[in-house]
This record gives sequence, C-alpha cells and structure tokens, in this order.
Amino acid sequence: MRIVVPAGGIGGARFLRGLQAALGSGADHQENEPTITVIGNTGDDITLFGLRICPDLDTVMYTLGGGINEDQGWGRADETFTVKEELAAYGMRPTWFGLGDRDVATHIVRAQMMAAGYPLSAVTEALCERWRPGVRLLPMTDDRVETHVVVDDDAGGTRAIHFQEWWVRHRAALPARAIVGVGAEDAAPAPGVLDAIAAADVVLLPPSNPVVSVGSILNVPGIRDALTAATVVGVSPIIGGAPVRGMADACLAAIGVETTARAVAEHYGPDLLDGWLVDDADAGTEVAGVEVRSRPLYMSDPEATAALARAALDLALELKGRRG
Amino acid sequence: MRIVVPAGGIGGARFLRGLQAALGSGADHQENEPTITVIGNTGDDITLFGLRICPDLDTVMYTLGGGINEDQGWGRADETFTVKEELAAYGMRPTWFGLGDRDVATHIVRAQMMAAGYPLSAVTEALCERWRPGVRLLPMTDDRVETHVVVDDDAGGTRAIHFQEWWVRHRAALPARAIVGVGAEDAAPAPGVLDAIAAADVVLLPPSNPVVSVGSILNVPGIRDALTAATVVGVSPIIGGAPVRGMADACLAAIGVETTARAVAEHYGPDLLDGWLVDDADAGTEVAGVEVRSRPLYMSDPEATAALARAALDLALELKGRRG
Repeated sequence: MRIVVPAGGIGGARFLRGLQAALGSGADHQENEPTITVIGNTGDDITLFGLRICPDLDTVMYTLGGGINEDQGWGRADETFTVKEELAAYGMRPTWFGLGDRDVATHIVRAQMMAAGYPLSAVTEALCERWRPGVRLLPMTDDRVETHVVVDDDAGGTRAIHFQEWWVRHRAALPARAIVGVGAEDAAPAPGVLDAIAAADVVLLPPSNPVVSVGSILNVPGIRDALTAATVVGVSPIIGGAPVRGMADACLAAIGVETTARAVAEHYGPDLLDGWLVDDADAGTEVAGVEVRSRPLYMSDPEATAALARAALDLALELKGRRG
Repeated sequence: MRIVVPAGGIGGARFLRGLQAALGSGADHQENEPTITVIGNTGDDITLFGLRICPDLDTVMYTLGGGINEDQGWGRADETFTVKEELAAYGMRPTWFGLGDRDVATHIVRAQMMAAGYPLSAVTEALCERWRPGVRLLPMTDDRVETHVVVDDDAGGTRAIHFQEWWVRHRAALPARAIVGVGAEDAAPAPGVLDAIAAADVVLLPPSNPVVSVGSILNVPGIRDALTAATVVGVSPIIGGAPVRGMADACLAAIGVETTARAVAEHYGPDLLDGWLVDDADAGTEVAGVEVRSRPLYMSDPEATAALARAALDLALELKGRRG
C-alpha cells in the first residue's frame, strides 16, 4: 500500500508518527510494508546567518527519527542555544529565531550542500540517511517559495514580512491582510512528488495548518491537480471553532475562511477532498460532496494518535473502494 | 608612542597582553597612551563548513578581550562542542578541527560579512567592537593567503595539505618538505598596515612561530621592506634549542633553519632585526649586525610576561635612540 501525506510541521509530524504506529512501520521498514511518502511544506523555510532552515522538513525528520524535543514539538531534544546567544552578543539580527546548537549543524550541512549545487530534495535525502525517519520525505519543491505575510505598517499602508517573523517574532498577533507564497507560481514539484501522488493508493491530509502548510503545498503548480485525481481524506485542524494547536485561526482569517471544521473542508473543496474527519464536538458537520465522519481528533497520546491515523486511512480505503 | 607588533596566535597574544600590562594600557585605552597596532597572521585561515575561520586573529582578539580559554591558549572559555559533534553525526568531514559552539558564532558573523563583500579588515574591526582588545588589530592582508605544507604521499611523491590539517590533524608529525604561502606573492597588505609600520616608533616581534606566523606576514609583498626601515626588536621563540611552545622546530626544519635562537635571528636577518632577546640559557649568542641581549623569556605568569615585553620595548627604544 502506498500512502502520500502532504505535511506541515508539528501536527503533520505527530500524525505521521501515529500512522506509522497504526501500520506497524517506521525506521525498521521492511519490504512489502506500506510505503509512506511525505510531501513536506517548504514555504516556512528561511535563510538566516547563511544557514538554510527548513522548519517543517526538520520537524518531520526529527520527530520520526527520534530527535525531536517532545514537549515543544519542534527542535532537537537536549538542545542548547550557545550559538544564538553569541550571535546576539555580536549584535547580529534577528534574535527572535530559536536557533539551537544541534539544529545549527543540520542547517550548516544543508547550506553547504545547497551551495555546492545540490537541490533541496537531494539534501533532504542525505539528512535522512542519518535520521532514518521510515518515510520517504520529499520537499514540495526544490524551488524557493517563501510565505510572506502582509501586515499594516506605521504609515497607514502595508508591508510584507517573512512568515517566520510573523509567526515566531509576532506570534501571529499582527493582523494578516494577506498571505502570499512568493515564488509559488513559478515553482515545480520536487522530483518524485507527482509520481508518488499518481502511484498513491490514498492521500491523507494531516491536521496541519490549512493555509501556510497544506495550502503552500497545494499552491505549487501541478500538485493540487494531481491530488484531485487521488482519494484524499483530511483530518480537520479545527475542533469546535478553534485550532487544535498553533495559530491557524489567524491564517484562516487572512484568507477570509471561518475557523470551523466545515469552512476548512469547503476551502479545500470537494474536488480535492473525498473524506473529512471532524471531532465529535463537530459531529453533524456536512460538507457538500465530501464524506464527513466524526471521532476524537485530539492527538493526546501515541495510542489516540495511531487510532486517529487508522481511522483516516480506513475511511480513505473505504472511499477508494466505492470509487472502484 | 606607537608600537607595531606582527603576531601569530598564542605566543603573540600572550606577549601582547604582557605589553599592555607593561604599558598600563588595554581595554580602557585613553588618549595619549601608547598605541599598539597588531598585524595578525592570516596564513592559518581556513574555510570549513562555510565558516571562515581565522585562528590567529581570533586568538589575539579573545585573549586581549577576555574571552580566551586560558589553559588551552586558543578558543573560547567555557566552550562546548555540540555543533562539531552533530556535524560528525551527519558524516561531515573534517572532524579533526576543534570547532567550538561559541567560536562558531564568530565564524558565522565573519562569513556573513565577507559574503556581503566586506574585506577581512572591516570584519575584524567589527568583531573587535564586541571584544575591545585595546589594540588596533589588522589582518596582514585582505587577500586570501593560505599556508600549505608539502608532505610525502604514499606513492613516493609529495602532496600539499592545508597548514591546519598538518598542524592540528597530524600534529606536525609528517615531515614537511616545504611550507608554501599560496597566494602570498599576489597579496597586498591590508589597509593601514604599511601606514602603521611607517608611523611606528618601534616594532616588536613576539615569540611567535618564525615560519608560519611571522614568516607569513613577512611574505606579504611590501611588509618586510617597510619593517626593515623601522627599529625592530624580536623575542626568540627558541630557548636552548627547543621551541618555547608549539612545534616551530618542525616548521624550521622544513625551511632548513636550525632550531636555535641564533639561527632564527639569522633567518630574520640583520636587515630586518635591530635587536634580539634570547633566554639566559642562550646567553652569549651572537648574531652579526644584531644587538643580542639575554634575559628570562618564559611567559610563565603575567608579571614575567609584562617584564619580558618591557625589556623588548626598552631595547627597541634604546636602539632607536642610537639610530637617532
């Protein structure tokens, strides 16, 4: 069985770990086991201090590879911040990015390989040789796509800032007038992405941010079209009108979508979605053209997360069977 | 009074601290105090992992700025090596370079500024804004000069390796057939170097490595000629036929110079040297055309180091007075 999962950071990584648990797969991947291909969001990527930082790819890699800071959900376990403190002592800006010492090494390797001409997909594969995440991790694109957020400036106009500045520095508290994927229209899917979707038995959308994570992936020309031909089941990132975690409501507001499980499904659209899992709190939600099921969505522990992933997979297989 | 000190790493840095102590100068530099301009060796510089590393400049900067690891003589105090360990975990080479986490930040700042087009001299000035070493620290050149060491290969021929590989990885144990300053002949002194020498009352050569530290500086076209016009007093790095520290004997052997206080002075030459301080163990050393004095040379504690620097300065002032 071949499963494709377009994923953002924390929510995507935890869902993937649940999926591996549900399938009994993971780092010790065997022949004939289900194969999971992850299409990772790279819209959050940023270059700081000459380091190339890919937060979502790294969160998936560290989480599935056993290196994640479990409490925080991102960054490395047992992390220290000496380099960050020293850069600040030199007066280097920005100081708001949580750049850990262990993490720095990942970004040095990536920056070095990219400076040598390797595309991000090859770099990601090389980094995964260490982490062995038990999935095939592909960036959505090898091209540079950066999510920028348009916010008000002090002169009554607007200015665009990098997503990371909006998200980390301002904690999404500045009203977002628009969210733009700079470079998206000229980007091509990374090698293997369209093939993986075409070969997929099912596609599962984890409860990642529908705007800046899954949305960025869908904005790469060719990916959304490929996905509409597949059987796609999504897990709502919204429970009872609020994001499960993160600040997805601020992103949804920016694109004029209500923070409800139904509105997000409608935003994805029935052409993309075949099935949609909502929380029991949202039982009764109806989305035209989409099979909606309710069940507990909180990924509160490994068992609950595995059960959620299993439910998403089962629904997808059921809907695929119906399509024949 | 204006003093110029061409300096390498540990020996140069400790001598400079002694000189500051002798003069009562340092970080709280006042108007009308003696001014020390350091011409730092950059032949040891190396680019690793996209970081630009200038070991000798940093050793001077950290030592005079209060950030040095005192026991080791190089690198930062309270250093950790997380980035280095993580790079090794990714399989990155080389693993033999002692790259500390605090140090990494210095190299990131330098690499970033150089990538933005700033010359090394401007970068060094910027880094010194944090460290306030109480001297004017100039690189010998803004051009890239790399000291390479020619060693035997396995096929009966020779190969050239970077000085750092020879020094750090092989601990100077591979016989050096030649020591070459790659790029030296095309290098120009950094801005301010020739002016500082021309304006100097005296020039003091610390007990730095005469081949790969002071020698590299002298190899930059224009610097040696400028120094011969000045009053120059050197401190022997050799005591009783052995280097005070480091592995200068291996370097001297490579260029066919004996490891003696006299041979080093003759290598520098009477055109360059006006005076030469040797240890009491070498009392009676005579060098044609050079005023030789003996005294304790070990920089065993701050007081002994300050007294040594004071003696070098006094001899230089005496010789300058004789020249009129």
